[in-house]
Amino acid sequence: MAEPRDKAEGWYLLHGMRKLNWGDWNSADERTKESAVDEAVEYLEGADGVDEGGTAVYSVVGDKADLMFLHIRPTVEELDAVERRFERTRLAEFTRETASHVSVTEVGGYTNEDVEDGDLSKYARSKLFPDIPDSRFVSFYPMSRKRDPEQNWYETTRQHRDEMMREHRESGEEYAGRIKQLISGSIGIDDWEWGVDLFTDDMKHAKGIVYDMRFDEASAVYSEFGPFYTGIRFPPSDLDAYLAG
Amino acid sequence: MAEPRDKAEGWYLLHGMRKLNWGDWNSADERTKESAVDEAVEYLEGADGVDEGGTAVYSVVGDKADLMFLHIRPTVEELDAVERRFERTRLAEFTRETASHVSVTEVGGYTNEDVEDGDLSKYARSKLFPDIPDSRFVSFYPMSRKRDPEQNWYETTRQHRDEMMREHRESGEEYAGRIKQLISGSIGIDDWEWGVDLFTDDMKHAKGIVYDMRFDEASAVYSEFGPFYTGIRFPPSDLDAYLAG
Amino acid sequence: MAEPRDKAEGWYLLHGMRKLNWGDWNSADERTKESAVDEAVEYLEGADGVDEGGTAVYSVVGDKADLMFLHIRPTVEELDAVERRFERTRLAEFTRETASHVSVTEVGGYTNEDVEDGDLSKYARSKLFPDIPDSRFVSFYPMSRKRDPEQNWYETTRQHRDEMMREHRESGEEYAGRIKQLISGSIGIDDWEWGVDLFTDDMKHAKGIVYDMRFDEASAVYSEFGPFYTGIRFPPSDLDAYLAG
Amino acid sequence: MAEPRDKAEGWYLLHGMRKLNWGDWNSADERTKESAVDEAVEYLEGADGVDEGGTAVYSVVGDKADLMFLHIRPTVEELDAVERRFERTRLAEFTRETASHVSVTEVGGYTNEDVEDGDLSKYARSKLFPDIPDSRFVSFYPMSRKRDPEQNWYETTRQHRDEMMREHRESGEEYAGRIKQLISGSIGIDDWEWGVDLFTDDMKHAKGIVYDMRFDEASAVYSEFGPFYTGIRFPPSDLDAYLAG
Amino acid sequence: MAEPRDKAEGWYLLHGMRKLNWGDWNSADERTKESAVDEAVEYLEGADGVDEGGTAVYSVVGDKADLMFLHIRPTVEELDAVERRFERTRLAEFTRETASHVSVTEVGGYTNEDVEDGDLSKYARSKLFPDIPDSRFVSFYPMSRKRDPEQNWYETTRQHRDEMMREHRESGEEYAGRIKQLISGSIGIDDWEWGVDLFTDDMKHAKGIVYDMRFDEASAVYSEFGPFYTGIRFPPSDLDAYLAG
Repeated sequence: MAEPRDKAEGWYLLHGMRKLNWGDWNSADERTKESAVDEAVEYLEGADGVDEGGTAVYSVVGDKADLMFLHIRPTVEELDAVERRFERTRLAEFTRETASHVSVTEVGGYTNEDVEDGDLSKYARSKLFPDIPDSRFVSFYPMSRKRDPEQNWYETTRQHRDEMMREHRESGEEYAGRIKQLISGSIGIDDWEWGVDLFTDDMKHAKGIVYDMRFDEASAVYSEFGPFYTGIRFPPSDLDAYLAG
Repeated sequence: MAEPRDKAEGWYLLHGMRKLNWGDWNSADERTKESAVDEAVEYLEGADGVDEGGTAVYSVVGDKADLMFLHIRPTVEELDAVERRFERTRLAEFTRETASHVSVTEVGGYTNEDVEDGDLSKYARSKLFPDIPDSRFVSFYPMSRKRDPEQNWYETTRQHRDEMMREHRESGEEYAGRIKQLISGSIGIDDWEWGVDLFTDDMKHAKGIVYDMRFDEASAVYSEFGPFYTGIRFPPSDLDAYLAG
Repeated sequence: MAEPRDKAEGWYLLHGMRKLNWGDWNSADERTKESAVDEAVEYLEGADGVDEGGTAVYSVVGDKADLMFLHIRPTVEELDAVERRFERTRLAEFTRETASHVSVTEVGGYTNEDVEDGDLSKYARSKLFPDIPDSRFVSFYPMSRKRDPEQNWYETTRQHRDEMMREHRESGEEYAGRIKQLISGSIGIDDWEWGVDLFTDDMKHAKGIVYDMRFDEASAVYSEFGPFYTGIRFPPSDLDAYLAG
Repeated sequence: MAEPRDKAEGWYLLHGMRKLNWGDWNSADERTKESAVDEAVEYLEGADGVDEGGTAVYSVVGDKADLMFLHIRPTVEELDAVERRFERTRLAEFTRETASHVSVTEVGGYTNEDVEDGDLSKYARSKLFPDIPDSRFVSFYPMSRKRDPEQNWYETTRQHRDEMMREHRESGEEYAGRIKQLISGSIGIDDWEWGVDLFTDDMKHAKGIVYDMRFDEASAVYSEFGPFYTGIRFPPSDLDAYLAG
Repeated sequence: MAEPRDKAEGWYLLHGMRKLNWGDWNSADERTKESAVDEAVEYLEGADGVDEGGTAVYSVVGDKADLMFLHIRPTVEELDAVERRFERTRLAEFTRETASHVSVTEVGGYTNEDVEDGDLSKYARSKLFPDIPDSRFVSFYPMSRKRDPEQNWYETTRQHRDEMMREHRESGEEYAGRIKQLISGSIGIDDWEWGVDLFTDDMKHAKGIVYDMRFDEASAVYSEFGPFYTGIRFPPSDLDAYLAG
């Protein structure tokens, strides 16, 4: 029965959602705030300045989070360390992590583009060892494949899955240049099976691509979706302005 | 398989639900209360006074929230900013945001009325760039289309969906003049796929229209509903009276 | 497809569940307790003493709540006001509202008894504008009709629903004189579609009627039930004894 | 359609789960601890010493609770009173009730053993008015019968249910002498339909009986299970040792 | 209908997940921290140093926990005691247990390797009375068998289950030397039916084995999975470094 695809994995990702305790922040004295911001900016710039991987921070709209940190690192240990190091900062004391997703970049399975001369293609390497796009917005959501009686992804044939993924890719290609997609796998690592980041300069494109794809068989029939986070990227140096409301 | 409809999007919406910490509020000294109310009234009136979009505040009945803020803004950044700016007020320290919905107005898909001489009709523009109706009450709820084996909206034909939406519109027309409806999309943006605001001067009409529509195929078979919020609108200048119990 | 029933609505209901912070209460000084109790008794007696509607308080067994307030009022605004007014009392500071249900009384749909000489019958009026029965206990629960592929209430014929409701009424009639039932609708108003109050002097009758009805097609096949609250009514003047443990 | 069974009910049960605030407890001064323990031991021994019913306390393994109180009382009012009386103790201030189950003992329906010379048999009376067994461990869990399209307990025939319960009883009889079972009903009273207590001196028997029964049609097809609590009974006089870690 | 397998059980397991209150920890004075760490190291080393069983501690990536304690003990009482004893430490006051799983090792049912000369094989004994592997990482998750209309594990024949488990074992054997698996049962003991620990020196192997197995009938059709925890093991003596961020 089993027809799993061969996959290659790359770097690890942590999406960490944090809520701010605004009341405590507002009533902190200015010196505390200043030093907390300075330390946090230093943390964020240092975290993004690593040789391999990077770190980005987003303002999340709505109550689910205030901030989302996206960390990419070569190893689980480094991911754990960068998450934990933030907890030692002054700013962290005004926040708590309320949701997260741990995953690892992957390629393979559904495209031929991933292999070149018997080696990983440049395309594949850009997916496995990605830079975080500079795009203004991100739509992040975790998802899984359904395993219900009449809609069980893991009971379909490899050929059927290939066809569904081709349809899915074609829907995605309509948004080439407008959406940059980062797919990471979390089976055996976190509750949902995959994480999806859609980077874009116009959230209407994120809405458009997810809406269009929802009519693809792979989504319509075989996917269940977790929470969606809408984030606005800002450079660490704008943290001060962010916290000023 | 894919037959998505073409959509046009307009302004962004944030429904932000907040619970008050009444104990802390009650025991605050009068001067703190007064200045907190003054500042919040100024915030709310300013937020509603923007050139494009607006802001309304509702008292929510039941434990799910005390207050609901409805913000409409042309951009995600402005939405994020108006949400965050409130956190810097004194009143915010007596509240916390416990639920929210982020979405964007949309038209298209199921009516011909949306286009006129190849351009967006006046009707469509009123839906994309809406004023917040003055109605006394609002019933707000998020919803999604079902994707279950025998009831999968995204597997129906475009013609079938058109028919279902026509039936739905006809049910709605029975309430013309009694209910003003505002539909916004949140696919790729928030957890549910749509947000629905029913503005009315008599909550029994909101109950009536949702009850009647529940027998329409589009609702009966193909919809799942999130939490329903019943809100009573009040002008910012009544905030003082609101908080006096 | 749509065959909704005509309904008439009456007064609005709020079931408000509250948990006590017993630790804070226990360590409050006697003068604070006394004045908090006096004020709360005055609030409860005043709330029950309105010309139209009424208010009752119940001790809830188990962890879901300590107290349940049942408010009945002619308008949503009055419901909102009576809920909010409690928050300004001293006792409220020792409690928090952890669950609630907002609804409106309704008749019509499934009986002929509701109309008499073209007007609402006396029976119907007693259901729309009810007194809160004096019964010792209440079993309160919200419920909805199922909308699943093979068990979709909103896809059944009006005749089938009439038959199911007749069977249901017959089960209920076995408990005449032992159970007083109050049905209120919350479609478009709150998360569940209905609220059910079973007033009785012996909780075994509440268990009996719900058990018997569970074999009726309307319940067995077409209902889903929310949390059940078992409350013991007490007069406001016993609040002191209640809080003394 | 309805074929409910006749039931007889006896005493009421409250399973109350509590978590301890260990940090506060650890930092309390010795005199406070001593008097809190003395008062709680007195409460527990008094609660168990009632003429009808009894009270037992269990240490619960895992994070779901620290302590489980099992109260059995002839009336709902007494149950409510014994739950509330604890809240007035000093120890209660270091705990909070995080889960509970309210139910009433029942017999009838599926065995002939319950009636004797037209009266309740001695067996039935021992089930309706039970002593709490002295067993070292308890496995407590609430459960309901399924009401899904192809697995709806309330649509099966009475004969089919009799057969399923006979099979279930036979599975249970394999554990005679090793497991004492206490079944209580909570339809109309609490969220789940039944509560099950398995008293045993070896938790492996509790695992064994639930595993074996899971292959019985009544469980495999027609049951859904709530949380399982594994408790270790201890006499009130060991409370001191319990709290010493 | 019942065809349960004979099982043998061994030692009990507690997986205890804890979140740290980093803010309180950061602002504690150095002497408090030092003595808290010393005491916790002593606790952890003592807990691991027992004659039968052991204790390991993991740093958990993401928001679900900061630390996971894995305790293995011959009896439920010892498990309860080692969990409770931690609560008396200073470090515990900076943490709270937010999730857990209680289970017992088991063999039997699906392999012949478990019995040898009529006695438990060496293989079986290593599964029943296990050492905690030294592996760098653990993927821990609870799981249950599905009991839905068309995918009900407990309605399949014993032969079918044997075949499915053989397929599953073969998938697992691909990872021999890279993954050490520890299966424990929790039917009748905790909410999920089993707990699975995958010990590995490369989390990509944990992802790989769970992904591959998801195409096995036993997983694809008959399993539902709880939360997945990714843990990095560290020796108690590194607790100081862990807490330094």
